[in-house]
Amino acid sequence: MLTEIIIIGNELISGKTRDLNGWYASGCLLSYGLEVSEIRTVGDNCDAISSVLKAAVNRSHFIIVTGGLGPTDDDRTTETVSRTLKRPLLLDRRLLDDIRNNTKKLGLPWSPSLEKLAWLPRGAKILDPKREMCGFSLSKGDRHLYFLPGVPEQMRKLLNREVIPDILQICRPSAIPRHRLLKAYGMSESHITDIFKDLCGKLKVVMFGFYPSFPENHITITVRGKKESEIERELNRAETEIRHLLGPYVFASDDQTMEAVVGELLKEKKMMLSVAESCTGGLIGHRITSIPGSSLYFDRGATVYSNKSKVEMLGVRQETIDRYGAVSDQTVREMAKGIQRIAKTDIGLAVTGIAGPQGGTEDKPVGTVYIGLSVDDKIFSSQYRFSGERDKVKLNTSEMALDWVRRYLNGHPFIPGI
Amino acid sequence: MLTEIIIIGNELISGKTRDLNGWYASGCLLSYGLEVSEIRTVGDNCDAISSVLKAAVNRSHFIIVTGGLGPTDDDRTTETVSRTLKRPLLLDRRLLDDIRNNTKKLGLPWSPSLEKLAWLPRGAKILDPKREMCGFSLSKGDRHLYFLPGVPEQMRKLLNREVIPDILQICRPSAIPRHRLLKAYGMSESHITDIFKDLCGKLKVVMFGFYPSFPENHITITVRGKKESEIERELNRAETEIRHLLGPYVFASDDQTMEAVVGELLKEKKMMLSVAESCTGGLIGHRITSIPGSSLYFDRGATVYSNKSKVEMLGVRQETIDRYGAVSDQTVREMAKGIQRIAKTDIGLAVTGIAGPQGGTEDKPVGTVYIGLSVDDKIFSSQYRFSGERDKVKLNTSEMALDWVRRYLNGHPFIPGI
Repeated sequence: MLTEIIIIGNELISGKTRDLNGWYASGCLLSYGLEVSEIRTVGDNCDAISSVLKAAVNRSHFIIVTGGLGPTDDDRTTETVSRTLKRPLLLDRRLLDDIRNNTKKLGLPWSPSLEKLAWLPRGAKILDPKREMCGFSLSKGDRHLYFLPGVPEQMRKLLNREVIPDILQICRPSAIPRHRLLKAYGMSESHITDIFKDLCGKLKVVMFGFYPSFPENHITITVRGKKESEIERELNRAETEIRHLLGPYVFASDDQTMEAVVGELLKEKKMMLSVAESCTGGLIGHRITSIPGSSLYFDRGATVYSNKSKVEMLGVRQETIDRYGAVSDQTVREMAKGIQRIAKTDIGLAVTGIAGPQGGTEDKPVGTVYIGLSVDDKIFSSQYRFSGERDKVKLNTSEMALDWVRRYLNGHPFIPGI
Repeated sequence: MLTEIIIIGNELISGKTRDLNGWYASGCLLSYGLEVSEIRTVGDNCDAISSVLKAAVNRSHFIIVTGGLGPTDDDRTTETVSRTLKRPLLLDRRLLDDIRNNTKKLGLPWSPSLEKLAWLPRGAKILDPKREMCGFSLSKGDRHLYFLPGVPEQMRKLLNREVIPDILQICRPSAIPRHRLLKAYGMSESHITDIFKDLCGKLKVVMFGFYPSFPENHITITVRGKKESEIERELNRAETEIRHLLGPYVFASDDQTMEAVVGELLKEKKMMLSVAESCTGGLIGHRITSIPGSSLYFDRGATVYSNKSKVEMLGVRQETIDRYGAVSDQTVREMAKGIQRIAKTDIGLAVTGIAGPQGGTEDKPVGTVYIGLSVDDKIFSSQYRFSGERDKVKLNTSEMALDWVRRYLNGHPFIPGI
């Protein structure tokens, strides 16, 4: 049974926006054994939409369409579907009420253009049970069409919660591929590739993929099979083997993030963390607090951008800054100790560095970063040199700092600095 | 004259790789007035490639194809082109010599599979004058096909240096489109749509587009014309009109971000900023410091996640927290005043709120946020209610907080809270 994807949006055929939906949907569908034969991308143009819809209905059993469902005049998908498939638009009064209520709930003013969202082709089934997102399905014999919003977040929710379960009820593929993702930090891609050369011969039924996802390296393991229990066993075998080969460089699997792993460890050990950030400007705190419930283990952060603030907020000695510089091993140690002492937390984590593009010197070029960790009466610190632009230096610094906490709590050595 | 793009690669219809080529090529072509009608993405599959090629030759004058030109077995574009367009493959001996020489120059060993690259359909013209990259063009009457490598860097070079100049020799579009992007915050999309209904009649030569880019709304203005000076005038006229209609909701144009605009204003007024963050956990500081040179106007941030830290770092009174709660108007005012006083900055900005998913009450549900701004001896504060999940609440809070600084410095009223 053929599956195809149609992506609608002027912004996608004019170089304005990179498509996220075709890519995401094809990956999700494949993970259930549903291979996508084609992704067609057209503008918000009735003729173009109509022509790809007709061709799709002629050859594919499952057709996923995204975009053009909104209230504005350039959203033309619904009306075109109605005309092309000869299903007149009908006003769904209950849906209109729901839209009115949702608008009110969100504290937004009512706008007449929103009524358009309640006119759907005859036979359309609304996808979102809560009626908060646009999207509907239509069937025509053995052809099943799913119309999803172009907003990636909404598209993803409806695809996973409504569309894929619906398709799997109609057709269940026999050999299901299952994936596992392992995330590594601190090793180069070529290093990982070399390590894997051996492994590929050993584990025959397993496929590997590598995807750099800055500053991390992601490794996917794919196993195809008919029995979930067999697939699971093979995935576990491959994961064990990889973790054995890469050691503590592997920090997480699947949806876990570095900040989530650090949070779990802190909770488990009942330890409180505080951070002192200079070059990252708050990014470490932001990442830690992106995890629900992080107040259980995160007490506070001091973003000490100016030298004065390092002295006043953390008790770093002016003399230390004058003598060694704000970006120095001595300063980062006083920062880590300072935030730990002031916050009275088990751990104090600190970073200072030169994110660039200005501020580098011959001795300390852009990308020079110091990380410090104060636990009990011990202080650890090290210097790193990160490449790339400002945002990459900030991100890499935050990742390395979080990795220090993870490695400390796991009893692993830190990634060596320079 | 119609232009279409065909993207070939298994990795692109299986969720492994996000396409960069269709997006890039459509943007480049449009900047010369060549509108792309469709982007079709198929796997390395002879039947699929053949079918999209036939359809393309039937309807489009210019057809740009990327991918599947390499030496490995799964690269099938060239052989399929040969069969579909009935142009037998011929060995180009000079090209073969060039490939041999280039391989030697790069210090790579010769591999028999590389000979495949020298077999091209009859009538093919090689695109790269240096013969370092794969790629050829074919013409069939008034249909012009360009086959480019899938490697984005090579595709881009050949597209810009060879393909686009070739197309422009055959057809020079009379009207070049130019774009401008305006960014608005704090208005709903439907509200903007209503306002625009009038405008579209007024400015006939101008096209508008709306793209929600959470939490912002982006508005693109497109003008087509023959003379750059005329186009520029029309763009300016449209921008002025939109800024007049949307007022201070428009905060930036083109590549500018909210944090860059705030930074420019602070620099211009020679004012220093400090922030006190609770629910955003450092995100506001992170955004401010993502701008190079932000140390000129950003002094420090206090990420006061625990109640204790609010008291200790900012001098918020324990009594205030006990009586009104950490998420309250009273607390945010003391936070803003506190950070301003301690940092001795011109402006103190503070946020406190419930990012969720836990922590909401009937009175103060998830998404309840207070923003406070302390300048000189004045303190402003307001309550907002943001929808969405944790990350969206954090992002919206940071945007609103930055917008407060922008509006204050511009003398505009704040977006009303609830």
